[in-house]
Amino acid sequence: MQFSTRVSRLRASPIREILKVIDKPGMISFAGGLPAADSFPDLSVNGLNHKQLQYGATEGELELREHIAADLAKRGMKVSAAQVLVLSGSQQGIDLVSKLMIDEATPVAIESPTYLAALQVFTLFGADTIAYTPNTIEQLRSGVTGDGRSPSLTYTIPTFQNPTGHCYTLEQRQALAQVCDDNGSVLFEDDPYRALAYDECERRPVCSFIKKAHWIYQSSFSKTLAPGLRLGYLVCSPDLYPALCWLKQAADLHSNRLSQYIVFSQLTDACAQQREASLVDSYRSKRDLFADALTRHLHNHASWEVPKGGLFFWLTLKTETRIDSRELLVEALKHNVAFMPGEPFFPDNKDTPVCIRLNFSHASEDQVEAGLRKISEILSAAMV
Amino acid sequence: MQFSTRVSRLRASPIREILKVIDKPGMISFAGGLPAADSFPDLSVNGLNHKQLQYGATEGELELREHIAADLAKRGMKVSAAQVLVLSGSQQGIDLVSKLMIDEATPVAIESPTYLAALQVFTLFGADTIAYTPNTIEQLRSGVTGDGRSPSLTYTIPTFQNPTGHCYTLEQRQALAQVCDDNGSVLFEDDPYRALAYDECERRPVCSFIKKAHWIYQSSFSKTLAPGLRLGYLVCSPDLYPALCWLKQAADLHSNRLSQYIVFSQLTDACAQQREASLVDSYRSKRDLFADALTRHLHNHASWEVPKGGLFFWLTLKTETRIDSRELLVEALKHNVAFMPGEPFFPDNKDTPVCIRLNFSHASEDQVEAGLRKISEILSAAMV
Repeated sequence: MQFSTRVSRLRASPIREILKVIDKPGMISFAGGLPAADSFPDLSVNGLNHKQLQYGATEGELELREHIAADLAKRGMKVSAAQVLVLSGSQQGIDLVSKLMIDEATPVAIESPTYLAALQVFTLFGADTIAYTPNTIEQLRSGVTGDGRSPSLTYTIPTFQNPTGHCYTLEQRQALAQVCDDNGSVLFEDDPYRALAYDECERRPVCSFIKKAHWIYQSSFSKTLAPGLRLGYLVCSPDLYPALCWLKQAADLHSNRLSQYIVFSQLTDACAQQREASLVDSYRSKRDLFADALTRHLHNHASWEVPKGGLFFWLTLKTETRIDSRELLVEALKHNVAFMPGEPFFPDNKDTPVCIRLNFSHASEDQVEAGLRKISEILSAAMV
Repeated sequence: MQFSTRVSRLRASPIREILKVIDKPGMISFAGGLPAADSFPDLSVNGLNHKQLQYGATEGELELREHIAADLAKRGMKVSAAQVLVLSGSQQGIDLVSKLMIDEATPVAIESPTYLAALQVFTLFGADTIAYTPNTIEQLRSGVTGDGRSPSLTYTIPTFQNPTGHCYTLEQRQALAQVCDDNGSVLFEDDPYRALAYDECERRPVCSFIKKAHWIYQSSFSKTLAPGLRLGYLVCSPDLYPALCWLKQAADLHSNRLSQYIVFSQLTDACAQQREASLVDSYRSKRDLFADALTRHLHNHASWEVPKGGLFFWLTLKTETRIDSRELLVEALKHNVAFMPGEPFFPDNKDTPVCIRLNFSHASEDQVEAGLRKISEILSAAMV
């Protein structure tokens, strides 16, 4: 038996291992990007109808796509429903865009650090990754790769980035759009956290500043409604749409119609805006509480910035020696505390700082106290 | 902008175009493999809970996987829940297995004709397809390809095949398993129609006859419950499981939890067996009625066998000249009648008979009469 060559590039993701232990009783998890259990809307579905149960269109339900297009217009993106493709969660968008763009050795620019499951998929398809940060965008102009090629695809999470929580300034957004316009790279903007904004900041999509480059913008309903429904969407420049739609069909025919119905009902509910505002208020409180607890428990061990939105604190450990934070996680799990080690988020772990990512949306106040105290003890022991 | 090389192998599938017109008022569709509208269970979901809405495990819900494993044991397959991977519909299994096994020029054996969306995906990933039929299984032993290679992967739909409706005999099942045992090909058995059996016939999975080859078996809840829920599963030899699970995670993290909950509730409902028996009775009547109408309207134009199960009649047109059945479809659609042309089901259209596939589960009795009469008129005009 011979597996494909791509399988040799397959790495088990820490996300998967961690999702497995999340249901373990007594576990305090700062690991996943999990919404708070009490944040879910009250959902009931009475008498599913024919349309929700039968096969549907690959593109998704038209009324949902029209709603999404109208919503994007408010963010400065003039798109029609014909450019909207409903996804089985935005992870699927990463798979489809990789299929569309990536051959073995295709140069792909990604932030360092970046969303680890995107890094995993780009690598699976054979990408040569080119690392950048919001401060080194200009380096993405031609000539960054060894052989002088510029990236074919540029992946970014500009708003409340995963894992850093960084929100690109207006200037950084314009610069990234300009670089793609100039070097012909397709911009792939991943924007799942946009609605979770706790302080004023620039959130206009980078795609809205594009003048001529091709682009794909995607988002998710996992963070504002419910991840178990597995629903997201992408919207793209018209040239890319037919191929992405065919790839979607080849991947799973179409997205779950029941989820599409539930999400559409929620989005058009009279209380939708109020519900989202309460969610944001609740998460802001959780962030502030978490920031307080961090200061009390970890100010000697780490530094961080308070994120203006999203779901994560990104801590850089104040360590002189090279610690592997994956080993810290093994230790923490023994004490029923989970977090995300920083290493898997970097395309290359040479000379990177030692970091850990802490989610603040899922744990309760008591759990935050107990969990951060435990992490402090583990760090004290490890950083002796 | 440069697409990946695989995009050059991408073909829009007729399935997708047809799913688009299915909701058009007045359309009589014999095209898709659509369940009857009145076949769906009465489903309501009251107060979705935390577990259904939160992120879940890539493998799927444990209780559902245990139920599937127990059900497979009744079919002669001794598997544990640890070998079961819940899928977002069985189309996803084709994508995952292709990722696992297929590089450019990997030899893949497929029936001719076969499920067109499987053919589409294998081709997308670069497979060199090797055609076989239930009567030419022995030719799959080494040496069938020009360069003497045997297939790395062998895809089969042995029970009520799509599109032909053929059900493999015991001898054909044993022969296929033996060939894979002998030539080291991974067997990929696709079994979505198994429950829809209207006459006595052999249905034991080919995988149950495997002695040493690696294998993947998959099925779907689309045909017996509801396709809009997008849920299926695969089970495989233990060596293949970790990589398939990682590929599933990379594709969409995990399957819809609400659908998993609904399907599990239906499968374990006290009336589940009775409901499935009624469904089979109802589809048997539809098949018999369709067979009658076919004989009245099309006996001069085509030949066919009455399928012992599944959802399709496969007609071979009695034409001396080479007709393109896709052109017949264009004509039929003008008269609000849809069917599947035969050409896309063949890996190679050289010297193949002119065929069309007719679904009998979806249309009403009146629609069957009107639709087949119209097809008869179109064939009369085309075959002059």
